[in-house]
Amino acid sequence: MINVGVIGYGYWGPNLVRNLAEVSRVKLTAVADSSPEKLALVQRRFPAVTTTADYQDLIRDPSIDAIAIATPVSTHFELGMAVLKAGKHLWLEKPMTETSLQARQLLEEAEKRKLILFVDHTFVYTGAVRKMQEIVSSGELGKILYYDSSRVNLGLFQHDVNVIADLGVHDFSILDHLLKEHPNAVSAAGINHFPGTPENLAYITMFYDSGTIAHINVSWLAPVKVRQILLGGSNKMITYDDLEPSEKIKVYDKGVSFTDDPKKIYEMRVGYRTGDMWAPKLNEGEALRVAVEHFVDCIEKSQPPMTDGHMGLRVVELVEAATSSMRGRGETVHIQRKGKFQ
Amino acid sequence: MINVGVIGYGYWGPNLVRNLAEVSRVKLTAVADSSPEKLALVQRRFPAVTTTADYQDLIRDPSIDAIAIATPVSTHFELGMAVLKAGKHLWLEKPMTETSLQARQLLEEAEKRKLILFVDHTFVYTGAVRKMQEIVSSGELGKILYYDSSRVNLGLFQHDVNVIADLGVHDFSILDHLLKEHPNAVSAAGINHFPGTPENLAYITMFYDSGTIAHINVSWLAPVKVRQILLGGSNKMITYDDLEPSEKIKVYDKGVSFTDDPKKIYEMRVGYRTGDMWAPKLNEGEALRVAVEHFVDCIEKSQPPMTDGHMGLRVVELVEAATSSMRGRGETVHIQRKGKFQ
Amino acid sequence: MINVGVIGYGYWGPNLVRNLAEVSRVKLTAVADSSPEKLALVQRRFPAVTTTADYQDLIRDPSIDAIAIATPVSTHFELGMAVLKAGKHLWLEKPMTETSLQARQLLEEAEKRKLILFVDHTFVYTGAVRKMQEIVSSGELGKILYYDSSRVNLGLFQHDVNVIADLGVHDFSILDHLLKEHPNAVSAAGINHFPGTPENLAYITMFYDSGTIAHINVSWLAPVKVRQILLGGSNKMITYDDLEPSEKIKVYDKGVSFTDDPKKIYEMRVGYRTGDMWAPKLNEGEALRVAVEHFVDCIEKSQPPMTDGHMGLRVVELVEAATSSMRGRGETVHIQRKGKFQ
Amino acid sequence: MINVGVIGYGYWGPNLVRNLAEVSRVKLTAVADSSPEKLALVQRRFPAVTTTADYQDLIRDPSIDAIAIATPVSTHFELGMAVLKAGKHLWLEKPMTETSLQARQLLEEAEKRKLILFVDHTFVYTGAVRKMQEIVSSGELGKILYYDSSRVNLGLFQHDVNVIADLGVHDFSILDHLLKEHPNAVSAAGINHFPGTPENLAYITMFYDSGTIAHINVSWLAPVKVRQILLGGSNKMITYDDLEPSEKIKVYDKGVSFTDDPKKIYEMRVGYRTGDMWAPKLNEGEALRVAVEHFVDCIEKSQPPMTDGHMGLRVVELVEAATSSMRGRGETVHIQRKGKFQ
Repeated sequence: MINVGVIGYGYWGPNLVRNLAEVSRVKLTAVADSSPEKLALVQRRFPAVTTTADYQDLIRDPSIDAIAIATPVSTHFELGMAVLKAGKHLWLEKPMTETSLQARQLLEEAEKRKLILFVDHTFVYTGAVRKMQEIVSSGELGKILYYDSSRVNLGLFQHDVNVIADLGVHDFSILDHLLKEHPNAVSAAGINHFPGTPENLAYITMFYDSGTIAHINVSWLAPVKVRQILLGGSNKMITYDDLEPSEKIKVYDKGVSFTDDPKKIYEMRVGYRTGDMWAPKLNEGEALRVAVEHFVDCIEKSQPPMTDGHMGLRVVELVEAATSSMRGRGETVHIQRKGKFQ
Repeated sequence: MINVGVIGYGYWGPNLVRNLAEVSRVKLTAVADSSPEKLALVQRRFPAVTTTADYQDLIRDPSIDAIAIATPVSTHFELGMAVLKAGKHLWLEKPMTETSLQARQLLEEAEKRKLILFVDHTFVYTGAVRKMQEIVSSGELGKILYYDSSRVNLGLFQHDVNVIADLGVHDFSILDHLLKEHPNAVSAAGINHFPGTPENLAYITMFYDSGTIAHINVSWLAPVKVRQILLGGSNKMITYDDLEPSEKIKVYDKGVSFTDDPKKIYEMRVGYRTGDMWAPKLNEGEALRVAVEHFVDCIEKSQPPMTDGHMGLRVVELVEAATSSMRGRGETVHIQRKGKFQ
Repeated sequence: MINVGVIGYGYWGPNLVRNLAEVSRVKLTAVADSSPEKLALVQRRFPAVTTTADYQDLIRDPSIDAIAIATPVSTHFELGMAVLKAGKHLWLEKPMTETSLQARQLLEEAEKRKLILFVDHTFVYTGAVRKMQEIVSSGELGKILYYDSSRVNLGLFQHDVNVIADLGVHDFSILDHLLKEHPNAVSAAGINHFPGTPENLAYITMFYDSGTIAHINVSWLAPVKVRQILLGGSNKMITYDDLEPSEKIKVYDKGVSFTDDPKKIYEMRVGYRTGDMWAPKLNEGEALRVAVEHFVDCIEKSQPPMTDGHMGLRVVELVEAATSSMRGRGETVHIQRKGKFQ
Repeated sequence: MINVGVIGYGYWGPNLVRNLAEVSRVKLTAVADSSPEKLALVQRRFPAVTTTADYQDLIRDPSIDAIAIATPVSTHFELGMAVLKAGKHLWLEKPMTETSLQARQLLEEAEKRKLILFVDHTFVYTGAVRKMQEIVSSGELGKILYYDSSRVNLGLFQHDVNVIADLGVHDFSILDHLLKEHPNAVSAAGINHFPGTPENLAYITMFYDSGTIAHINVSWLAPVKVRQILLGGSNKMITYDDLEPSEKIKVYDKGVSFTDDPKKIYEMRVGYRTGDMWAPKLNEGEALRVAVEHFVDCIEKSQPPMTDGHMGLRVVELVEAATSSMRGRGETVHIQRKGKFQ
């Protein structure tokens, strides 16, 4: 039985707490939050759980094995470091930290102490992304030509992070998981339509050594909700519509084919190819539950999570690079290659 | 009665000829095409129309008042100039020309000779875009914050023009018509996935003095067809889905609202606002028919078309700027302001 | 504060308990269920609530003011009667009872004792149906011409009730609420595709004195989920798609118009009329929560619920009539008119 | 080369004429219509075709091998009989005739004279229905449990035929083609919402010896267009949405499974089974063109069409039976079995 405490019971905390409470190998022991109302809510729902306004109570409690942090990103580094220094495993909500320097320090601390550092890029644990990853790694798509994501809606305007750090990180983590390759360059454009607020709309383009191009369109100011990814391969292509109730993933046996006949050099050398479409059955379990189970597995077996600190760091680096390019009005930011994909 | 000849009976020519044939004020007199098979097809369908493999026959025919050119863009300048120099009104398919220099020369020639120069940006004549323009110009949307277009499908790979010149021009013309403002900067990324072919996928961002940002996603390599525009205003927002059979345009009474209370400077100052949605009835006539009628009106009344040479030139300038930025891997291209919006 | 007990913690019970627990004017005191596992679940989630395997404990408890019954329909009559005879208010899941005779007896008992008898036809409390009712009662639609519902999916095969008692009751209650009129005749066809199971697919047609016709298509054996209602009026028409995330209700200014010119007696006298579509903003609160609040209001103010025993009885009568017609292979069953619509 | 004449250039005639004109083995020689405007239109479009206001000119013309009739159904019998008696092959628009007696007489006349009698149930020639038929006949679906069709929209109110004869015939012909079985009973309900007009809305249920049940919902008074068929088999199920641009047919590996364990007689014996979905690529050619080619084939090879007079007769019998049941308020009409499915 692993004793887990949670710091932060705001927007995402309740989902986390509910899932931790339902995993049999976990004992949810304490929840910390600065708001008495939030703590009262916890007590009503989980009377056996200790509540406190002081997160240090959790850090100091020797019976707690692991702590999950679901507070604003600006606090992730300080809280996370305290957790690790207390010798506890760490679950951090996304994005991992505000800066890549912070992420790197947490990662080093965790590795030094041989503690599990889990970053909650939940999408990686959905049935849809797991199925995409399975199809990509089978080679069925052929060479990956492009990834194109629209992730827009009328969303809560954040006051501490921009839309890239809020929504773009989902695509950064999905891409990291699917491609096992880090982009070599990022270019982004974006705007804050309301003075004094972070950018609420951004377009990000990423280039990869393999030739893949990725594009991400994120916005808090769209009248309709869109969650659509197109993943184009040289043999087949996938669409992933997260708002579809059941057929989220569709695999298209469609594409273009070529003649290499040199005589046709001045003619059209590209032809259509269309075939069947196939929508595989997906695992429909709640992704956060899968993530929690995986976190517990990693603690028990001392093995790195799929969404470990290295991945968390790579995602934070992309947030930094994209934000930097966006503020330079699209100037390309070059990125060093990073290793160690899980 | 206006006598009209058509040069080019390939992909778009048959649509043009069919519409010209059905307008009562027009007499379709001759069609030129280099392919005997195409000419045989014209004769079977329109036995009263003269056919010829030599377009000069049309240029030289004094009874012809206007000539429509539906040939590859590389021929637009030479053919168009010959038409104008023969003192005939000119209809050019989109894009107007390969280069802005050519467009400027045609524009000058037409203005000098007081001839109508019509560029067939057909989308401007659709019921959907006309309704959008009506709503935008009424001020109902408030300040225009963004324009976001996805125009992708598994499309015919062109061998002479890239996807910006093929699909992006639709958005350039719609934007020109809606905003009556020219962007001050363009940035684009794109790729040709197959060596020796033009770019088949591109992402274009445009910045306007008014603060509007526009983004265009065009691709010939998507497994599904998408034709969706989001137009966000400070008061209301529009979605335009061209694949919807009847409710193409939806107006959302949705957005964000602000408090300007300086005391709340550190708090969230943005709130949601959601309300009804409204899908106005659209005129369902064929856009090309509307365009042909407008062309005839402009000839009869000696007035400039909505899609005149100035607009055609502005669109070609954007194709040039976006292509230049794309080949410079997203380097921003600055644009001089252009006047004379119809 | 109203003390409420719940009997039955199976499929719907947990939703009911969760909502009762969150209403401040309610004190959820006890839950009864025959399954120890279910009771353990209740205790884990709501440690302050008494649990028991013997529902009589709730009936006998004088501190309990009202009891909600969420058990199989075959037990509704016996349990409901015991609740009423103990002088407690009664919440019954739908359908109210197995037979109309049972419903009538419960209704009489409740009226005699001046107790609230609430039947949980939850759909009546959704934002969508409330908005439809508002529009219908405003007269905006004109005369109601037809109601057409498809309510199909790959559903749990019930072994005690047929698909009419499971899914059809939703439409019976919505119709009752919208039309305030009882049909005069019912005809139904249906089939059980698997011997020994209740009918899993049924088509029900109902006729009203006002000329309205209603049709309901229910199935547990469809590969896709459909929840669509068309409501046609002489002036306007409504579509209600319950699977749409936000625009569930659409009002169409569409229809047909007539000339009454006697000279045109042999000609077509019907013309199209199409106009705008409008999707009103809906209240998005959970319907069951609204229902629970309404139940509490009715107890506090001693007033009949919108979904009272009279309505529950009318719905059960329609289940009986439709089932009888279905087993008579579509023979029309005539119905006496019923009064007292809330 | 087969010489073909066409009688009737109203709603469907132009489509028929256009397709006949494009088939190389056909020579379209003459078109008859009572309207001078319609004939002028034909002459403008097809100057080589003879036009006449007197259909007898076509009947009498010995050079004409086959005549297609696209006039109101009330004239089909008289015109069709004249065509056959003149020794010409006959193409009749759907429905074949007003009464089954008329259909039977035409059928006998055609058989006696060994002439091709083709009824234009165009849907049978669509890529979608052909693919469904291929899948059904492969046995992949298992036993066919049900057919459920919604075919509604805001349609042209007909003044000579009801909605069953207008829209229902499409389903009758598709069912006939897919099942190769004639129903043993029909029950229908319907209404004419406007006095003096034919029924504009109908619900038809059909029962088959094999246990299949079919249901058809047709209406001219729906605010939205729906063209959806569900075809449920014991192994797999198909959806056919004719409004989908490309994925009209979807095959679901979904259903229910059973245990036959007698010990479980009182328990639920039905379980879910869900799997992948598959959308086969369809032939996208125009169905009417396929039908015309098939008509010519049948003439050349003296073989019966897929939509021959027997099928046309069966469809007319179902229109009669359904209309009769509808006017008897749903009274079941029993049908004798009919043989000779192509």
